[in-house]
Amino acid sequence: MSVLPIDSLETPRFCGVPTFMRLPQATSLAGLDAAIIGLPSDSGSPFRTGARFGPNAMRAMSVMLRPINPYRGGINIFERLSMADAGDAAVVPGYQEESLERLEASMRALVDAGVTPFAMGGDHSVTLAGLRAVARRHGPLALIQFDSHSDTWDKYFAGKKYSAGTPFRRAVEEAVVSPAHSIQVGLRGSLFTPTDISQSIELGYDVVTTDEMFAMGLPALATRIAARVAGRPAFVTFDLDFVDPAAAPGVQTPEAGGPSARETLDLIRRLKGIDIVGCDVVELNPLFDNASQISALLAATIMAELIALKAEAARKD
Amino acid sequence: MSVLPIDSLETPRFCGVPTFMRLPQATSLAGLDAAIIGLPSDSGSPFRTGARFGPNAMRAMSVMLRPINPYRGGINIFERLSMADAGDAAVVPGYQEESLERLEASMRALVDAGVTPFAMGGDHSVTLAGLRAVARRHGPLALIQFDSHSDTWDKYFAGKKYSAGTPFRRAVEEAVVSPAHSIQVGLRGSLFTPTDISQSIELGYDVVTTDEMFAMGLPALATRIAARVAGRPAFVTFDLDFVDPAAAPGVQTPEAGGPSARETLDLIRRLKGIDIVGCDVVELNPLFDNASQISALLAATIMAELIALKAEAARKD
Amino acid sequence: MSVLPIDSLETPRFCGVPTFMRLPQATSLAGLDAAIIGLPSDSGSPFRTGARFGPNAMRAMSVMLRPINPYRGGINIFERLSMADAGDAAVVPGYQEESLERLEASMRALVDAGVTPFAMGGDHSVTLAGLRAVARRHGPLALIQFDSHSDTWDKYFAGKKYSAGTPFRRAVEEAVVSPAHSIQVGLRGSLFTPTDISQSIELGYDVVTTDEMFAMGLPALATRIAARVAGRPAFVTFDLDFVDPAAAPGVQTPEAGGPSARETLDLIRRLKGIDIVGCDVVELNPLFDNASQISALLAATIMAELIALKAEAARKD
Amino acid sequence: MSVLPIDSLETPRFCGVPTFMRLPQATSLAGLDAAIIGLPSDSGSPFRTGARFGPNAMRAMSVMLRPINPYRGGINIFERLSMADAGDAAVVPGYQEESLERLEASMRALVDAGVTPFAMGGDHSVTLAGLRAVARRHGPLALIQFDSHSDTWDKYFAGKKYSAGTPFRRAVEEAVVSPAHSIQVGLRGSLFTPTDISQSIELGYDVVTTDEMFAMGLPALATRIAARVAGRPAFVTFDLDFVDPAAAPGVQTPEAGGPSARETLDLIRRLKGIDIVGCDVVELNPLFDNASQISALLAATIMAELIALKAEAARKD
Amino acid sequence: MSVLPIDSLETPRFCGVPTFMRLPQATSLAGLDAAIIGLPSDSGSPFRTGARFGPNAMRAMSVMLRPINPYRGGINIFERLSMADAGDAAVVPGYQEESLERLEASMRALVDAGVTPFAMGGDHSVTLAGLRAVARRHGPLALIQFDSHSDTWDKYFAGKKYSAGTPFRRAVEEAVVSPAHSIQVGLRGSLFTPTDISQSIELGYDVVTTDEMFAMGLPALATRIAARVAGRPAFVTFDLDFVDPAAAPGVQTPEAGGPSARETLDLIRRLKGIDIVGCDVVELNPLFDNASQISALLAATIMAELIALKAEAARKD
Amino acid sequence: MSVLPIDSLETPRFCGVPTFMRLPQATSLAGLDAAIIGLPSDSGSPFRTGARFGPNAMRAMSVMLRPINPYRGGINIFERLSMADAGDAAVVPGYQEESLERLEASMRALVDAGVTPFAMGGDHSVTLAGLRAVARRHGPLALIQFDSHSDTWDKYFAGKKYSAGTPFRRAVEEAVVSPAHSIQVGLRGSLFTPTDISQSIELGYDVVTTDEMFAMGLPALATRIAARVAGRPAFVTFDLDFVDPAAAPGVQTPEAGGPSARETLDLIRRLKGIDIVGCDVVELNPLFDNASQISALLAATIMAELIALKAEAARKD
Repeated sequence: MSVLPIDSLETPRFCGVPTFMRLPQATSLAGLDAAIIGLPSDSGSPFRTGARFGPNAMRAMSVMLRPINPYRGGINIFERLSMADAGDAAVVPGYQEESLERLEASMRALVDAGVTPFAMGGDHSVTLAGLRAVARRHGPLALIQFDSHSDTWDKYFAGKKYSAGTPFRRAVEEAVVSPAHSIQVGLRGSLFTPTDISQSIELGYDVVTTDEMFAMGLPALATRIAARVAGRPAFVTFDLDFVDPAAAPGVQTPEAGGPSARETLDLIRRLKGIDIVGCDVVELNPLFDNASQISALLAATIMAELIALKAEAARKD
Repeated sequence: MSVLPIDSLETPRFCGVPTFMRLPQATSLAGLDAAIIGLPSDSGSPFRTGARFGPNAMRAMSVMLRPINPYRGGINIFERLSMADAGDAAVVPGYQEESLERLEASMRALVDAGVTPFAMGGDHSVTLAGLRAVARRHGPLALIQFDSHSDTWDKYFAGKKYSAGTPFRRAVEEAVVSPAHSIQVGLRGSLFTPTDISQSIELGYDVVTTDEMFAMGLPALATRIAARVAGRPAFVTFDLDFVDPAAAPGVQTPEAGGPSARETLDLIRRLKGIDIVGCDVVELNPLFDNASQISALLAATIMAELIALKAEAARKD
Repeated sequence: MSVLPIDSLETPRFCGVPTFMRLPQATSLAGLDAAIIGLPSDSGSPFRTGARFGPNAMRAMSVMLRPINPYRGGINIFERLSMADAGDAAVVPGYQEESLERLEASMRALVDAGVTPFAMGGDHSVTLAGLRAVARRHGPLALIQFDSHSDTWDKYFAGKKYSAGTPFRRAVEEAVVSPAHSIQVGLRGSLFTPTDISQSIELGYDVVTTDEMFAMGLPALATRIAARVAGRPAFVTFDLDFVDPAAAPGVQTPEAGGPSARETLDLIRRLKGIDIVGCDVVELNPLFDNASQISALLAATIMAELIALKAEAARKD
Repeated sequence: MSVLPIDSLETPRFCGVPTFMRLPQATSLAGLDAAIIGLPSDSGSPFRTGARFGPNAMRAMSVMLRPINPYRGGINIFERLSMADAGDAAVVPGYQEESLERLEASMRALVDAGVTPFAMGGDHSVTLAGLRAVARRHGPLALIQFDSHSDTWDKYFAGKKYSAGTPFRRAVEEAVVSPAHSIQVGLRGSLFTPTDISQSIELGYDVVTTDEMFAMGLPALATRIAARVAGRPAFVTFDLDFVDPAAAPGVQTPEAGGPSARETLDLIRRLKGIDIVGCDVVELNPLFDNASQISALLAATIMAELIALKAEAARKD
Repeated sequence: MSVLPIDSLETPRFCGVPTFMRLPQATSLAGLDAAIIGLPSDSGSPFRTGARFGPNAMRAMSVMLRPINPYRGGINIFERLSMADAGDAAVVPGYQEESLERLEASMRALVDAGVTPFAMGGDHSVTLAGLRAVARRHGPLALIQFDSHSDTWDKYFAGKKYSAGTPFRRAVEEAVVSPAHSIQVGLRGSLFTPTDISQSIELGYDVVTTDEMFAMGLPALATRIAARVAGRPAFVTFDLDFVDPAAAPGVQTPEAGGPSARETLDLIRRLKGIDIVGCDVVELNPLFDNASQISALLAATIMAELIALKAEAARKD
Repeated sequence: MSVLPIDSLETPRFCGVPTFMRLPQATSLAGLDAAIIGLPSDSGSPFRTGARFGPNAMRAMSVMLRPINPYRGGINIFERLSMADAGDAAVVPGYQEESLERLEASMRALVDAGVTPFAMGGDHSVTLAGLRAVARRHGPLALIQFDSHSDTWDKYFAGKKYSAGTPFRRAVEEAVVSPAHSIQVGLRGSLFTPTDISQSIELGYDVVTTDEMFAMGLPALATRIAARVAGRPAFVTFDLDFVDPAAAPGVQTPEAGGPSARETLDLIRRLKGIDIVGCDVVELNPLFDNASQISALLAATIMAELIALKAEAARKD
């Protein structure tokens, strides 16, 4: 049995406190297959800040989305997956490591209850908290990272090890991801050091730059991703700066020259047969999203497509 | 017993789906003294539109407010009044009269349960729905209207009788307000007809223009308002365009030359001994409120002060 | 003989009250082949509102356009078609059905005078008014609809039949379009019901989704459109949400994943030999178009290209 | 006989190409008492630029104003003065001196026809063009300048004599104003040189700083202004930066610490018996006026009040 | 001898990388009396974030200021004080305590060289770093705090002691201020606890609320401030939320109902005879300052007035 | 030897006055291979204005870029080229011809010192100043112009010959470019006259429209460009309106239907073996770039790629 969102043909979408896609707010985790959760931390941001407002911005625009996904056989995603909006984790602004602990605890509460988390960032450092929580139950994870940056630097200012630029090195060190089954897609742009990309490969990741992505074509890339993670519990992390700033201006570290929204959604819709045990969409910063808030809409759309990827695999009756 | 809002010294205010001042969402009306409710209709707007987004904008900024009111003896307003956020009424965009019916029904549900509604507009036409609902229980109401416009025109385009410019003529015709105990404060600016102000007086309202307000001084005005409504169940309607556009740019019909935020709050804080049985703050339009959203903050602050006015009179133990 | 717009090499484009492409304002309809008209109604909008400001936003940006169209043989569109800006129809905000009547009357005034209307919305419900007016003279019309949504739902809130989501079902019911000669292009995104697309097909429309559009290629699509409407008086309705939100952020119902501006213009420029008897560009909402107003510029550019499509067929001397 | 603007109780104010207060556009000057004219030049701006868009921004917000002025006995200003919107003068962007010539020619066309110009800037350099045109007919003028800056510097970059910082020195040199009957009101803020204020006094102007203005009170100031210009044909120039940036953020040279909108309008409404032969409101820059456009609304309101000052003196039947 | 800023009558103010008031950038501290320094940390912000961009926003608008101060006898502030722009301290985003250490080190470098720091925040937590640095040289300081909040809470989320809400309790505990010679001015608004204000008094501060400020009048308040700090080395900290949000929308914690910009500047200009050994203007957040950036202009103006207060006391030849 | 920019892994990019890519400011030209210089003039703009703020907007976003270019073999561009930020040329607002003289003088100072200028506009008229300065040393230049407009009109308002629409006709007349070795790429959109494109061909330029660009493909186009300028000292001028407004909304004359940011960067990265002796990126207008400032980021990225094109050819040790 699933609880369906509010019917937007009956009650206008601007009515009511906005939850993700107008889902009910979670009052208990019992019976849920998956849940939306906000991870509103931006203490890991090295430049722009404001991703703390990302989860509610994503909720506000998500009310424009509808539950039927025509790209996955016309399924109603919330008939396949019983879901709720679990609200936000708490954080400690200005205290990056304490924030990661709180985020991990909230994620773990879901995972321990058998509820797959679909998390809304926050900056990219929050993914480390998610990976830790999910890997505790599922072991080292197959990571699918959409991102214009590798985020595998070793440290940032004053030698600090936890920031939005370092989580995927930490994740390997902590063995919460299995790099041999993981892939980073979409890297591009100018680099700090000549090894910004090779360092990911040395850590064991498969790496596909934006240029390589277009050279091989999206169908081939979708196949490569699926093959890389095959048979493993997978965590999908989508950094919104994967997309070109024209389609996603409201991000913390925009990188000119990425795929369009159509190309991005096409790629995600081509993914098949991935066993998602955790997921996040991160780095949305509504303070830079202008009046139109198209980045928030795109982030919510991507989240809904990732939910559909899991829903497609679910068998409900 | 009262349920207190989330403690903002423990959980940052950007965490979680924003309700008004982080109040719990109403799951039942039992035990509530008062409730916040959104009336997200802007079908009555003759010029700017977008007030349908007003309630959620007010909620988003209201999380910056704190529960102790130092202007009323340091009371915790939510210890005096048991409150919750009752969400929004549904509306029928583009169908003004059907929208008023739905709004009235939602307001009536609160009033019938003995819960005092503190409503967030929406354009000023929604007040007619509120007055109808509250008057059904309390009889013709003493109206305190803060507004730069009288809103007592007879009709607008195509002879239509229900718009943001007409509710306080309709309210007299329908006997849901008692004009002899009612007052309009803050009228100013250019007029459509020479009788824009005198028509209110002819309807029986006491009228104080912005110029008169400053000539008599705010303490005298507060006394005059209290005397006008004394002993009667009162409905306070606060049109945000009462305030100067510098302090409230995000309104539907800005009128240059009004009081500042400080003067406005000073006036409200001077009101004493009014028996509020219904209240609304209307005409906030966040689409014109710029990135800073100071109009939404001011609207929320005014609402909190009006709640405090009622809380002061309540005796809790 | 035609009256040419103000010469922007002599008088800067920021000088003067902006009409569409600096055309003269219509003082009479005599001698005009076509006219620009604004249909500033947004009472049919189920979510965002503000399209009432669309016509003037389109005018303001249209002054950047120039009269020679190099994609149609370098013709001066205003030498081929004698045109003027006929101003706006009046509407009744908050009264959707009365608004449609007023809009239809204004459109009919042009049509009855033999002037082809090129209308600026307004939300998509205004197209029903246009179709009614034009079909009265030309019979059931061949409709070419560019749109990310089918707008063929039966009813919306409270069972209301007239909204931005329903005009193309009403148009079939009222026999003002001939679905067998009509086509909807660009549908995409999540759906309310599994039949959102098939319901259009059941009504008799040819339907091309965004995915199908790119699969077949734009030249083939242009041919398919022309074939579908061949020999019939055609009405072109362009909903700006056909385009990706990156290129058209200022719309009422943005849908991520559409064609770029370049692809959109390329498609329109490939259309040939269509007998346009009515046209509109709708759903522009300048309140969400940010400081740059690129959606308004694109809307104006599309309008100018559609005028050129008609101008190409005209024979002037 | 006068032509009245469009009735905003019949046709919504968002309908139609916006002229100033919905006045008819001038097709001839015959029979007009006064006219609105735009002077869209910002080539004289030493810092911010964009005032070229000021006239149309003022028109767009002016549709919110109504024709009856309750501060001058409830007169309908357009029954007293037959007016029209005469459009904009042409300019030559990047060529300051040629622009001034074109502006003067357009102003002179009005003045020569006996039509009092109410001009919308444009930066403050346009006032020199206006003064030249009006003085040609009326002789050296009594100038009433509301401004936070004296604009009596001698020259700017590269020794250029014509900029927004110099017109009121030029005006004295050219004998188009009579400084002995002229007054500058509102000067404040930091200075380039110790003589920024005394240089105005040396030129013969009466000068009242913002501090002095509040020390003497607005009634006394209104009297002083009237006394200064008594019996002379007067030109009123209102630089929007006279007002505090809170109320007028969209100006070219904001100066913190000015009067509020209410204080500003109060001062203007107290002016009596001034023989206005020319007037302008300048330095509005809508590119800095944010989504709410409150500066444009204030500028239009000030213009309407200055028209009312002239209308009050007119005797119509 | 002093180095004067670039002459804005020769080179337009938009030319060149903006330093504070176009001062030279410091290449050495030798010979400087005072210096501008940015403290771009917002890790202490409990709600809004983005004050890290405050220093450069203040610089960008400060180019509109001029060096002569007519409120202090027409002195050229940079002839009295030899100043330069010393750039920004480095910080460690997400690591509040390490950031405070870096900020203190940068401030100490100035203080140790005998250069009075005029610092630009950053959130209010940066003031603790400044106080520590300055007190090391001058002993416990007389603090003059303009602020709508006391910032004397004990701790915030997870018991953390260092945030924008706690510096003035910490400063007393660390004996870097002498509360008996210190004063907090401008407190207002709703409170977290009934002791929000009394806790400051218990710590030994003199406290003047916004209401008390207007009750006593600005001249009396200026006298009270001067008396409180008399004879002591003083540190002035100006939280921009002291001012009403109408005049300072771009702050991190806006509080409705404060003084206007004119009242604020009037108060500062009335201060006399204060021995400033350190100063900051904090909490400017340009991400919420809208296109017009009036908060940044006001912040820069306040800084220039505080420099003038020190310059007035300096004797240069 | 080269001076490297500030290391953004040590000091956050929001710290310090922003120079282009955090380069040192030039204190002398000795030893420099190339320099960044701002040309902040918009006196040549026929419609939108504000490009005077372009150089500092580009600097502000350029701090997000990193020095290693993976598209040119992973070189550190600042190890290959010794560079500094030389600040801005001075201009004379409102005096287009005097401004061009000042701009040329500043450019000449660099060229005479053997420093290759990489200039930031300003409107497109500034390129004429640059061409004059560079051609003085290198003779008639091979021009590579990326632009949606030809900018080869003869004159604008009042017959003026110097504006953003005329520089490339003037450049041929003055023999500072050699049209036989020059190419204009990206022309599109509606035209003023039927000869807008042919006039460029008649002047001798090779011309590639946007449509032709996509028809031939980017690799072929890169080859055609290189062949056209082969062996000649080349000047690259990049008008940001070459790009589609979705990716570059903040320009002075947006033209719908251009290449995406990815396509644009792909084209530039394919250019090889061009002997750049001067370069500019122009027409960025931050007043229309919205909060996200993606146009400024793209402009800075394009500049960095053009620097890399030159750096690749340099041999450093």
